[in-house]
Amino acid sequence: MRKEIISPSVVKRLPRYYRFLSDLLAKGTGKISSGELSKIMGTTASQIRQDLNCFGGFGQQGYGYNVEILRDEIATILGLNHKYSAVLIGAGNLGRAIANHIAFTEKGFTLSAIFDVDETIIGENMNGIVVENIDKLKDFCKKHKPDVAVLCIPKNVAESMSKQLIEYGINAFWNFSHYDIAMEYPQVSVENVHLGDSLMTLCYKKTLTEEKENN
Amino acid sequence: MRKEIISPSVVKRLPRYYRFLSDLLAKGTGKISSGELSKIMGTTASQIRQDLNCFGGFGQQGYGYNVEILRDEIATILGLNHKYSAVLIGAGNLGRAIANHIAFTEKGFTLSAIFDVDETIIGENMNGIVVENIDKLKDFCKKHKPDVAVLCIPKNVAESMSKQLIEYGINAFWNFSHYDIAMEYPQVSVENVHLGDSLMTLCYKKTLTEEKENN
Repeated sequence: MRKEIISPSVVKRLPRYYRFLSDLLAKGTGKISSGELSKIMGTTASQIRQDLNCFGGFGQQGYGYNVEILRDEIATILGLNHKYSAVLIGAGNLGRAIANHIAFTEKGFTLSAIFDVDETIIGENMNGIVVENIDKLKDFCKKHKPDVAVLCIPKNVAESMSKQLIEYGINAFWNFSHYDIAMEYPQVSVENVHLGDSLMTLCYKKTLTEEKENN
Repeated sequence: MRKEIISPSVVKRLPRYYRFLSDLLAKGTGKISSGELSKIMGTTASQIRQDLNCFGGFGQQGYGYNVEILRDEIATILGLNHKYSAVLIGAGNLGRAIANHIAFTEKGFTLSAIFDVDETIIGENMNGIVVENIDKLKDFCKKHKPDVAVLCIPKNVAESMSKQLIEYGINAFWNFSHYDIAMEYPQVSVENVHLGDSLMTLCYKKTLTEEKENN
């Protein structure tokens, strides 16, 4: 229940807090003040106090925050202890990178299966998981009821695929395709990664800097 | 000059406008009203009119927007016609996916070189570019003066690598590492892609949905 009162802007910052606190913990830092944390994170101490107060505020005046308790609290709010089961659809270059590069288990998920249509990829072992034929997706979902689908497929395929996956009971998507799932299915949880949009944004920033320098 | 008055929140939406308008153009749509566009994009007509008014507003009462002119205008604002030269550092799983998956040329960039430290990867051909030894980076930068670096390397390497790259004259980064370049070098343009943060955010959304269902 507590989560519902955390504002979206604070939620957006929680993964970054989690990352920095995990780094501090790995370095053996036991406690930290909002002032020190703000310097490391490039923000203000008052912003940090305000953010962390939203969910209980474990800081003590003149003592600071217990790094481990705070990090674990943020992990709980993010739901990282859930180990939701994820299926990856599309084992091309991007899907392969996602399967191999991302530590799903640290981020609240377990990658349980990978599916593709490409006969040359099916049967390949990716990070301990054998890529299966997409034909077997329906049966897999029926049997194992995965929680989340990771879509590393082109936009034109993503529309029908997400429709199927929702019919198979999946209600959360990590979406690398350019198909807007959330528009069609407002009830599902979607996190989009639009690499193309990100690259265009960089182009804008670079252009702006150049124009400023030239003026 | 005009760009400086476009608010960051509008800028953030421009790549998405660009994508939808490109799709419309590919389907042969010549003009579109703010009402129709809002339905396709899942937003409101007034939001669209407000956004597009920021940079001249090409819509005509009772006629709508000329899709091609509007798309080209957004491309110009984003700087997509620049063809900035980009070097990719790190040709592991993620770097490989980025090199092969992203149409750099459509997004304002040309991928001109790929560098790695791994002897087993150096010499490999990725999307027409041969992966070079990182030893050659300095000379390459001196000779070709690339505009942008794409960092697909771990956080612990990214710190020293970005320092070097800035010394070599690069002032813009597409950053997939978890190192916060912008904090150390506020003068450079940085666009971060934090896949781990994105996955944690999905975990939060999924957890929230489950809690609502269970209550």
